[in-house]
Amino acid sequence: MDVTQAVRTLAEVLPAHEAPSAATPFGRAARDFLYGEVWSRPGLSRRDRRWVTLTCVAAADSPQPIEDHVHAALASGDIGLEAMLEFVLHFAVYCGWPKASHVEGAIARQWDRIHRERGEQTTAWPQLGNDALRPAAWDGTARTRRGGVHRLNLTPAPPMNSPYQHAGILNFVFGHVWQRPGLNRRERRIITVASVALDDSPVLLQTHVRAALHSGDLGKEEMDEIVLQFAAYYGFAKGEALADAVETAWASKAELTEPTH
Amino acid sequence: MDVTQAVRTLAEVLPAHEAPSAATPFGRAARDFLYGEVWSRPGLSRRDRRWVTLTCVAAADSPQPIEDHVHAALASGDIGLEAMLEFVLHFAVYCGWPKASHVEGAIARQWDRIHRERGEQTTAWPQLGNDALRPAAWDGTARTRRGGVHRLNLTPAPPMNSPYQHAGILNFVFGHVWQRPGLNRRERRIITVASVALDDSPVLLQTHVRAALHSGDLGKEEMDEIVLQFAAYYGFAKGEALADAVETAWASKAELTEPTH
Amino acid sequence: MDVTQAVRTLAEVLPAHEAPSAATPFGRAARDFLYGEVWSRPGLSRRDRRWVTLTCVAAADSPQPIEDHVHAALASGDIGLEAMLEFVLHFAVYCGWPKASHVEGAIARQWDRIHRERGEQTTAWPQLGNDALRPAAWDGTARTRRGGVHRLNLTPAPPMNSPYQHAGILNFVFGHVWQRPGLNRRERRIITVASVALDDSPVLLQTHVRAALHSGDLGKEEMDEIVLQFAAYYGFAKGEALADAVETAWASKAELTEPTH
Repeated sequence: MDVTQAVRTLAEVLPAHEAPSAATPFGRAARDFLYGEVWSRPGLSRRDRRWVTLTCVAAADSPQPIEDHVHAALASGDIGLEAMLEFVLHFAVYCGWPKASHVEGAIARQWDRIHRERGEQTTAWPQLGNDALRPAAWDGTARTRRGGVHRLNLTPAPPMNSPYQHAGILNFVFGHVWQRPGLNRRERRIITVASVALDDSPVLLQTHVRAALHSGDLGKEEMDEIVLQFAAYYGFAKGEALADAVETAWASKAELTEPTH
Repeated sequence: MDVTQAVRTLAEVLPAHEAPSAATPFGRAARDFLYGEVWSRPGLSRRDRRWVTLTCVAAADSPQPIEDHVHAALASGDIGLEAMLEFVLHFAVYCGWPKASHVEGAIARQWDRIHRERGEQTTAWPQLGNDALRPAAWDGTARTRRGGVHRLNLTPAPPMNSPYQHAGILNFVFGHVWQRPGLNRRERRIITVASVALDDSPVLLQTHVRAALHSGDLGKEEMDEIVLQFAAYYGFAKGEALADAVETAWASKAELTEPTH
Repeated sequence: MDVTQAVRTLAEVLPAHEAPSAATPFGRAARDFLYGEVWSRPGLSRRDRRWVTLTCVAAADSPQPIEDHVHAALASGDIGLEAMLEFVLHFAVYCGWPKASHVEGAIARQWDRIHRERGEQTTAWPQLGNDALRPAAWDGTARTRRGGVHRLNLTPAPPMNSPYQHAGILNFVFGHVWQRPGLNRRERRIITVASVALDDSPVLLQTHVRAALHSGDLGKEEMDEIVLQFAAYYGFAKGEALADAVETAWASKAELTEPTH
């Protein structure tokens, strides 16, 4: 482990953050493991590592890391405002509205801060017109979208016999959110994998990890990097469950043929 | 503490559950505190205590308590299938889709089990027609619904400048979910208060507790019972944050006049 | 980093666990960071590291790590059955009943497994007599116990104006649980600090970290080790919030005189 490398990576990941004190075991591990090892690795872009990290810090509710990582992602230019706001909606779906509301507040605060730091006026967020909504998404033709879930998740289409499945999954989540512009499908998969890993719903964890790998949207080496990044930010306990899901899904890839439903 | 009362309450709350072993500190406290004290209290109906409890066990991901409480709620008749399925959608909004997916699976399993226990054929869940969707909910007139959020939460209408606010909060959460039949507003408030308390997003916690108390949908004594029920099922750490939010909101009630936005 | 040391430590921490594959970034980090660095450190006993770890894996709900760590703690003799069962009750208080119920199930399964592995009959868990309950704890004299909360937390006594405070905090949590034998106060503090850190209720996090340090039950160096152990198992996001709380509490220690309430 190269301390210089660790400090340089930290300066890239969290430019406004003072280096963690190496006076405590935690501070030293943050420097040497988190920045010196995890963030310094090849195999996943810094933007992609930010998606995993933003998902984790937004779910963890720890106030300061949320502000720090939102600031860094925007100030570095790694993530633009539009994609960041799109992230909030996707995250709301998988981790719930309250945490999403908090992270959107953090984005507003950090957007202001970045402009102040640059001596600029804060530009208002773009006001969304009605055309920002896909009108087709809520027109009651949920049945026709069942195939979309099927194709996205490479699973049989869900039944349509509960409010959760019908109004929720079919009309809103797959009928609307996953189809929005602003984030591509690969990035939505990264955010989703991190979300289901921290929620540890066993079936969805398996479903989304498998779909991400089997679709080819994420390669095995990329997924392995996601696992480590996730474990660093959400702990090795949940990290192990994600690692297991990845190995299981990868082992089954050879057996996969075309879905038959 | 009356052990007989505790055991009787347990038999009402979880009829199919064997009494917790009094051989362990946890088992004894479950009997004496959880059933003997918390569930035995007046001030909140058993159905309402179930909403708090279902929210907590569904969020906590511990497999067996989810199955037990879903079974008990349905088998006792305290909660019907339609309301239970409606709960899943509301819960998905506040605690995320993955956990909701898991609890919907538990409902399917327990619905089958109840019919088997009664020697009956499992009845299929009702297939939802398109008319189960409120067509007005996604028609692009989100702007006109801003007042609805305002009235429900007794707060200024949110801005409409992000996907989260526009497609999420306005069109889906308040434009659709909160307006669905199947659960009344008071019950949605109970589920929401428990959800934001476990998510511990500080702003939404304050917003929803205040709205529930200030609207009169929940009285102070009912809310106090919700706090205790919640603390038992999600722990006293988050319980205390909820208790503080309730006291703050209650203290501000006198100061509340009409919202001016 | 010494791979031999990492593998040896892993064998001590999780004797029945196969070494994580070094073929993935996660597996390599588990070996080199988690076992090679964190668990290998001096400054905190392995039993104490187990309390932090058990709290984290029990809260994280990832099924396999719970089973593995419960097995290892019992099989190694680091933690006896009685203390382990006492842990479940304390954990239930801070992280809620459902997760505690799950971990108690894991203890039963692993207790059986350990006896099978040794070719022994599983011994029944000891039956608790009524004297295992402090009779004084539940007699309604909560008012007299308010001073106990005060002294334990070095804070003003809480009000007694809600079911949460009265039946919950005063009668049950401080009037009973914290006073039970089976775990000493220092160990209860370790479990509590990890619990409030993962629950991230900001007020309780500050209260319990401060009380643990100011009482002298935990030294600063021990607490620093707890922070690292916690960050490894529950992630650096929450780890940072705990680290900040520790520094704040430690900085205020010099200013502390006798509590005046």
